[in-house]
Amino acid sequence: MANNEPTLVALLSGPDAPGIVSRVSSHIFERGGNIIHADQHHDQEEGIFFQRIEWKSKNSDLTVEEEIFRQFASEIGMDAKVEHSTRRPKMVIMVSKADHCFHDLILRWKAGEYNCDIVGVISNHGDLEKASAAYEIPYYKIPVTAETKEAAEKKQLECLRALEADIVILARYMQVLSGKFLAAIGAPVINIHHSFLPAFAGGRPYHQAYSRGVKLTGATAHYATAVLDDGPIIHQDVIRISHRHSVGDLIRKGRHLEKTVLGQAVAWHLENRVLVYRNKTVVFD
Amino acid sequence: MANNEPTLVALLSGPDAPGIVSRVSSHIFERGGNIIHADQHHDQEEGIFFQRIEWKSKNSDLTVEEEIFRQFASEIGMDAKVEHSTRRPKMVIMVSKADHCFHDLILRWKAGEYNCDIVGVISNHGDLEKASAAYEIPYYKIPVTAETKEAAEKKQLECLRALEADIVILARYMQVLSGKFLAAIGAPVINIHHSFLPAFAGGRPYHQAYSRGVKLTGATAHYATAVLDDGPIIHQDVIRISHRHSVGDLIRKGRHLEKTVLGQAVAWHLENRVLVYRNKTVVFD
Amino acid sequence: MANNEPTLVALLSGPDAPGIVSRVSSHIFERGGNIIHADQHHDQEEGIFFQRIEWKSKNSDLTVEEEIFRQFASEIGMDAKVEHSTRRPKMVIMVSKADHCFHDLILRWKAGEYNCDIVGVISNHGDLEKASAAYEIPYYKIPVTAETKEAAEKKQLECLRALEADIVILARYMQVLSGKFLAAIGAPVINIHHSFLPAFAGGRPYHQAYSRGVKLTGATAHYATAVLDDGPIIHQDVIRISHRHSVGDLIRKGRHLEKTVLGQAVAWHLENRVLVYRNKTVVFD
Amino acid sequence: MANNEPTLVALLSGPDAPGIVSRVSSHIFERGGNIIHADQHHDQEEGIFFQRIEWKSKNSDLTVEEEIFRQFASEIGMDAKVEHSTRRPKMVIMVSKADHCFHDLILRWKAGEYNCDIVGVISNHGDLEKASAAYEIPYYKIPVTAETKEAAEKKQLECLRALEADIVILARYMQVLSGKFLAAIGAPVINIHHSFLPAFAGGRPYHQAYSRGVKLTGATAHYATAVLDDGPIIHQDVIRISHRHSVGDLIRKGRHLEKTVLGQAVAWHLENRVLVYRNKTVVFD
Repeated sequence: MANNEPTLVALLSGPDAPGIVSRVSSHIFERGGNIIHADQHHDQEEGIFFQRIEWKSKNSDLTVEEEIFRQFASEIGMDAKVEHSTRRPKMVIMVSKADHCFHDLILRWKAGEYNCDIVGVISNHGDLEKASAAYEIPYYKIPVTAETKEAAEKKQLECLRALEADIVILARYMQVLSGKFLAAIGAPVINIHHSFLPAFAGGRPYHQAYSRGVKLTGATAHYATAVLDDGPIIHQDVIRISHRHSVGDLIRKGRHLEKTVLGQAVAWHLENRVLVYRNKTVVFD
Repeated sequence: MANNEPTLVALLSGPDAPGIVSRVSSHIFERGGNIIHADQHHDQEEGIFFQRIEWKSKNSDLTVEEEIFRQFASEIGMDAKVEHSTRRPKMVIMVSKADHCFHDLILRWKAGEYNCDIVGVISNHGDLEKASAAYEIPYYKIPVTAETKEAAEKKQLECLRALEADIVILARYMQVLSGKFLAAIGAPVINIHHSFLPAFAGGRPYHQAYSRGVKLTGATAHYATAVLDDGPIIHQDVIRISHRHSVGDLIRKGRHLEKTVLGQAVAWHLENRVLVYRNKTVVFD
Repeated sequence: MANNEPTLVALLSGPDAPGIVSRVSSHIFERGGNIIHADQHHDQEEGIFFQRIEWKSKNSDLTVEEEIFRQFASEIGMDAKVEHSTRRPKMVIMVSKADHCFHDLILRWKAGEYNCDIVGVISNHGDLEKASAAYEIPYYKIPVTAETKEAAEKKQLECLRALEADIVILARYMQVLSGKFLAAIGAPVINIHHSFLPAFAGGRPYHQAYSRGVKLTGATAHYATAVLDDGPIIHQDVIRISHRHSVGDLIRKGRHLEKTVLGQAVAWHLENRVLVYRNKTVVFD
Repeated sequence: MANNEPTLVALLSGPDAPGIVSRVSSHIFERGGNIIHADQHHDQEEGIFFQRIEWKSKNSDLTVEEEIFRQFASEIGMDAKVEHSTRRPKMVIMVSKADHCFHDLILRWKAGEYNCDIVGVISNHGDLEKASAAYEIPYYKIPVTAETKEAAEKKQLECLRALEADIVILARYMQVLSGKFLAAIGAPVINIHHSFLPAFAGGRPYHQAYSRGVKLTGATAHYATAVLDDGPIIHQDVIRISHRHSVGDLIRKGRHLEKTVLGQAVAWHLENRVLVYRNKTVVFD
């Protein structure tokens, strides 16, 4: 789905009504735009219309075109998130000690899979400082203890603001973030949980899974919300396990699943494929 | 995707051009229709536009509405297949001795998953005659040998015509159909091949897979064409196998995969989700 | 893994100790037996040894050979379940109205996949009576209401005893069985739950899954215990879902998953591949 | 399956005969060994016995114990490969320009998943020289052209011998190795092919897959042999694709699959889980 020419993407949602598809496509056509992809969904139980639409603009000033589309969407009663592909969002990765998701995200980015700038790594530990330096990404070590948590979150917020973060990835960041912090952050936060949520929410999910004797282990990428492990799910996957696997094996096998699931979820987010509503997501994949 | 109100579905394809999405949706809107689903795809390498669009018509005469849409599609240079949901296509199942796909198709149909009428079973053997009778489906036994093949195909054609078959399913029918027969049949034919095509085309794919030592075995549902096992692929899936599995195990495990893959492919075909072009399919799932 | 010659299978478990593998294999060898398969597992965290061993006996009186092996196992401090392949366990299927698991189990059995006799179907409804008759399997209708539950369970128990049930399958039987009933039944009971347990235990799991916005839906086959949906898990699998799927779609897609998961779990149970310990299973697949 | 205490692993194969399991386990038991894992397989069609057996030795001189086991195996007519866990094989990675498998292998190794030493990287290009340096792994650039191929292979051989390579990984090394080179190398060579072999052997498999319209794309890790893409398969997996995916998307999605499949195959090889016979493998996973 790579596209080198600049495009606009809109994510629309609102009350379903006849003629919306027609009105949106006519608006773009009349302004000389050329629709590349369009995918819509009507939730007939809830009466909501969802659409992701991507088009090439005749007008080379994409920021103006964005604004015009936003006004149009407002006129037809739709919520709209509009982005253009020449804007590169700024991503900050938060880590603790585990490095598998950290490396995977950065290597995907360096391979050209992510249309963003990774502008910083924030950690409560120093373990990945040297690796960040090798990637030439600034590293901000902000230790966190039970006592210093509030102060640490304040520092993290200042850091995220200074970096102008558009998106924050918790790449196995092992501290629970407060609801207050999440409310203040002003940017979406994606977390990877190492279980098939809602099974095994909370701590030590691999130990829980081992103890319950499940035959599959999972990973879940979701937007972080104030309620722990309860935010809108973006992506999930599972792998098969058996009695042959110890907790240690589950952890090792799970690592590869975690990075795969998180890496895909971040890609979909950056490609503006994820629309959130009522604590659920519509993923236009 | 169940819908009890009557709807129309169109599958469109043709040269890509700006404004097609807009023109199609405006046409439907202007005639008082309400779009339920629309999914389009632009093959940028080939320059082809594909769309599946489903809508509720204001006009209760769906046959008239169908014809009007066909004319409209023709005016904008698109190939169009249009169906309405109150028409129930007539399905004929061809079998030999194996019964797993046969039962699965009929049980899905009886469970209300298939919007069609199963009007007959044609077989070169008598094994499933009693089971067909229990389902109250007419059974036509037409034996086939190397010597009688041409005459048998003639009888099969007469039978399919008498039954007014709109769709023919080869549910592990173990005779190769001639190109001449397929050309004359006048209805799409869906076959299930018990391998991940194009690997292991031809006969005895489980033996081939065992001999090659592959770690996955597959099944492929495809439209039958004159070239054996080379028609447009509708659906494929695989399951994991190991050295522990004998050829007999592969056959047994494969049976469940075959029925699952065929059952899904038939569902997509009946829901008008499969568009064929250049020996490939676009499946709007 | 088909084997036409009679074999013995033992499932052993007990405290791990050096030399067990050697002692077991030597015992069989010294009695003229020939080991066909042997799979063992040492749970190093719990210090438990597990083994499934299958062999051909020189002694044609398999019942005697079974008893000799049981005594030997006892001498080396192992719990042992021993079966021989010429004994066909008696299976009873309990159903309500849904027929997909019912047909799937019986068709697998008729296809020769299950080494057992299906001796009866017990239902709280009459819906599947005719279908049972077509399969020539006796049908016992025992209605259940909140008021009559205790009496109904008594009748069910009498029925199971009269049928000499060795294994009971809850093939979407929609009544919760009491702990008392399960304790009295004297045979293992396998249930299919239509979610990835422990997520979405209890009623209406598809509605729960839809509401939570998960991206995969699952099915779990487990031994029924007094605690609802908490028994030892035998098999689980998942399929991918998206916002495009309504609750109705989840139910329909889930049906195929349920029958596949249950059908496999029953196969493993009948092949004596499932060893239960501490509310978990070791499945020697 | 992590084990910190030193263990021995033997992979046995040979003509099946009664009593082998007993003789092997008795041999180990009599020498004071403690069997940790044992998995055996009898190929009844071919009449071959296979076993992987892992044990703790009483004798701390594992090299002596290895030799004693080899002699014992020879006496009972079995081929045996015996390794002990304190020996770390030397691995060499061969690459061209693509870096995804390269990074993945090295990161798994650094995470402690591979019991080996990565002693060098050989490439026909200079692209990954800097990255190798960052990992502190020596890099040997040996350019290859059609004209210089024979000379280049000679240099590669000298390099592999100087590094005392025990195992060579072709991590998307884009040159075909000659049969002569493979015969001379004296160490197993694992290759990753970006298709579900035997489908789409040879060059440009993603283009082939796109052109054929398959619905799944695969990756295959196999031992390299003189016949291109025909060596014994160690591991395979697939991912689902659709008409929405261009060749570029297939390549991108395939990258993640390739590294996952290769990474797992290398793990199994290093854990002495892969036994080769008749161009197939038995993987004791």
